[in-house]
Amino acid sequence: MAIAKAVKGALAGASMIRKMFEEGSELKKKHGAEHVFDFSIGNPDLEPPRAFHEALLRLAEEDKKGSHGYMSNQGFPDVREAIAKKASREQGVDLSGAHIIMSVGAAGALNVILKTILNPGDEVIVSAPYFMEYSAYTANHGGVLVTVDSKDDFNLDIAAIAKALGEKTAAVLINSPHNPTGRVYPRETLEELAALLREHGKKTGRKPYLLSDEPYREIVYGGVTVPPLLAVYEESLVATSYSKNLSLPGERIGYIAVNPKAGELDDLLGGLVYATRVLGYVNAPALMQRVVARLTEEKVAVDVYAARRDAFIEVLRKTGIEYAPPEGAFYLFCKVPRRGKDGPGGDGDFVQHLKKHLILGVPGSSFKKPGWVRFAYCVDETLIRASAEAFKNAVAQW
Amino acid sequence: MAIAKAVKGALAGASMIRKMFEEGSELKKKHGAEHVFDFSIGNPDLEPPRAFHEALLRLAEEDKKGSHGYMSNQGFPDVREAIAKKASREQGVDLSGAHIIMSVGAAGALNVILKTILNPGDEVIVSAPYFMEYSAYTANHGGVLVTVDSKDDFNLDIAAIAKALGEKTAAVLINSPHNPTGRVYPRETLEELAALLREHGKKTGRKPYLLSDEPYREIVYGGVTVPPLLAVYEESLVATSYSKNLSLPGERIGYIAVNPKAGELDDLLGGLVYATRVLGYVNAPALMQRVVARLTEEKVAVDVYAARRDAFIEVLRKTGIEYAPPEGAFYLFCKVPRRGKDGPGGDGDFVQHLKKHLILGVPGSSFKKPGWVRFAYCVDETLIRASAEAFKNAVAQW
Repeated sequence: MAIAKAVKGALAGASMIRKMFEEGSELKKKHGAEHVFDFSIGNPDLEPPRAFHEALLRLAEEDKKGSHGYMSNQGFPDVREAIAKKASREQGVDLSGAHIIMSVGAAGALNVILKTILNPGDEVIVSAPYFMEYSAYTANHGGVLVTVDSKDDFNLDIAAIAKALGEKTAAVLINSPHNPTGRVYPRETLEELAALLREHGKKTGRKPYLLSDEPYREIVYGGVTVPPLLAVYEESLVATSYSKNLSLPGERIGYIAVNPKAGELDDLLGGLVYATRVLGYVNAPALMQRVVARLTEEKVAVDVYAARRDAFIEVLRKTGIEYAPPEGAFYLFCKVPRRGKDGPGGDGDFVQHLKKHLILGVPGSSFKKPGWVRFAYCVDETLIRASAEAFKNAVAQW
Repeated sequence: MAIAKAVKGALAGASMIRKMFEEGSELKKKHGAEHVFDFSIGNPDLEPPRAFHEALLRLAEEDKKGSHGYMSNQGFPDVREAIAKKASREQGVDLSGAHIIMSVGAAGALNVILKTILNPGDEVIVSAPYFMEYSAYTANHGGVLVTVDSKDDFNLDIAAIAKALGEKTAAVLINSPHNPTGRVYPRETLEELAALLREHGKKTGRKPYLLSDEPYREIVYGGVTVPPLLAVYEESLVATSYSKNLSLPGERIGYIAVNPKAGELDDLLGGLVYATRVLGYVNAPALMQRVVARLTEEKVAVDVYAARRDAFIEVLRKTGIEYAPPEGAFYLFCKVPRRGKDGPGGDGDFVQHLKKHLILGVPGSSFKKPGWVRFAYCVDETLIRASAEAFKNAVAQW
């Protein structure tokens, strides 16, 4: 009649974030939702593309026998083949349906991968700032998250990763386009990382996996493309979802793409399917598997996000707030401005201060990067433009 | 570049079952699927009720804004309220939406519960035979599955459970209607169990949770009803799904119902929602949440399963094979007949022998009950009737 100690501890830690959301809700009740500049949550507000609704309607009308029953835990074979074609183009390697495991979103994909590869005490290296859930995902499966700093421009710091590598390193986890910075890692950096991991493998006999969490792959700006991950390093797996590119986060649909050149490939594929089953996912939701297989050429209107990004940058420029120029995703990661004569202020304090001006953001500490604040621009552009005055006043009074 | 040792070990163990399925597939290729009596898999073959297709079509047409986005990790509030009403009737307690956590099927629900309640080394008691995945689910979260035998009639053996209780007991897990035996535990037995757990709690200061896995609640025969679980014991949680009553196993939709009288209720509910998030489910699939909320009064044609059950029993009677009379679910758990003058034969051998007669079943050893075999009757009644001759020959030649 008491819950697990680790979960109880996590609940206490999570209460700060919950409190933040509750305060945001209260602000909206008090002032009206349209008067609160809520940039706190990365919940895509763009509707799924028209083709999604058409595909869903067609499948609902078609009403195919057996289509809601169990399939192979790995996913429907025809769905995996369709996805493998597109993933092959994106990843620069020749994938078949055998290399695709359908998943319950990217979060499900990452848990399945970590369950499959981690021995107790194994380490996963990640570059800070990072999506806060990685720590819990790793701990779920007996692993330990080891964090290194990224470079000042938020590119990967290969030397820092080199120092963190050890006998217990099972994997390096990257996220590109990156939450919260919007950074896209260039191909040369990935190749340096690959060379480092190969060298480490030769030295220690244990070549780490390279895991790429890339649900934002198609949300990129100004002609940027996300380089292929599987093409640069053999022991690699991609975890992704349709949460961002099709705006379907609530439907929990994604997949794992496994490098065909990975060592002990049959064990790896078998392990991923086994983990999918015993973690209780069993398989990715059947209907949504069939929907996304028909939409490999579709995505949401990325130009809408691009326009918001530009509008937000304009707002920030007027205040002098420094930011990391985002190449993808839908976040602006900003430096907390100097606080009057006191020098740099804390990100928690700055977020509280912004709230007085009805602006909601997330402190960088939540991404293990104090002194910064994340604003999500998956909200209407008019709200972004309307926030200019509030931002100006907030910074003036800071 | 090597997977986790525990997963590699599990893959080796699973290869027997995989081999069995592969052999079944080969038999079907060789003899034609319609000539193979495949009673091995519990994949409901009945289509979802007409009302399911109507609800799905209406929701697809309606195309409501934001309906595929994130909601509270616990699930849509209106969905949980609708489900709470029905669960209150079934469980004999007054549940609100606050006591319901939407899940990725019952397997997802069980993993979320175990993650929430298990400290490292904590024990979960289960009565053999049992659904083989419970062991992996418990191990996922650092727990240990402790098994006790059930009584000869496959009812719970309360004295055996009493002996297994200890300081490390976090929970007792039951499954009713039961896979593989079809047993429904009577209310008196549940009350005895509740009294035992209360007494243990008084003695040790740690009152174990009682967990009920009950996806087959609505698949019952001959006027049997499944007694409420939440009404008999306060520290209780129900894990269930729509996989069987609506034939939607591939859609991964279910829920957890939490006893409103459970101790430290806020922690328990908060922990379950936290576990839902960090295990990577994040939330139950959005569209299916909304579909099942409209179908609280619907179920598949249970009389079809009842007719198959009767037909299968008739087939078995003619061979003299002894079986546990199923009160629910869609399995017949049968005793391996005496083998000529050699006495009782092994269940693995018997399953291999049946295969020669094109009959596929699952050895009881897979449910930790050697000497028995499980046949699933979620297949067409004509196939069941047609198997009579094969069963007769198989037993004669055993």
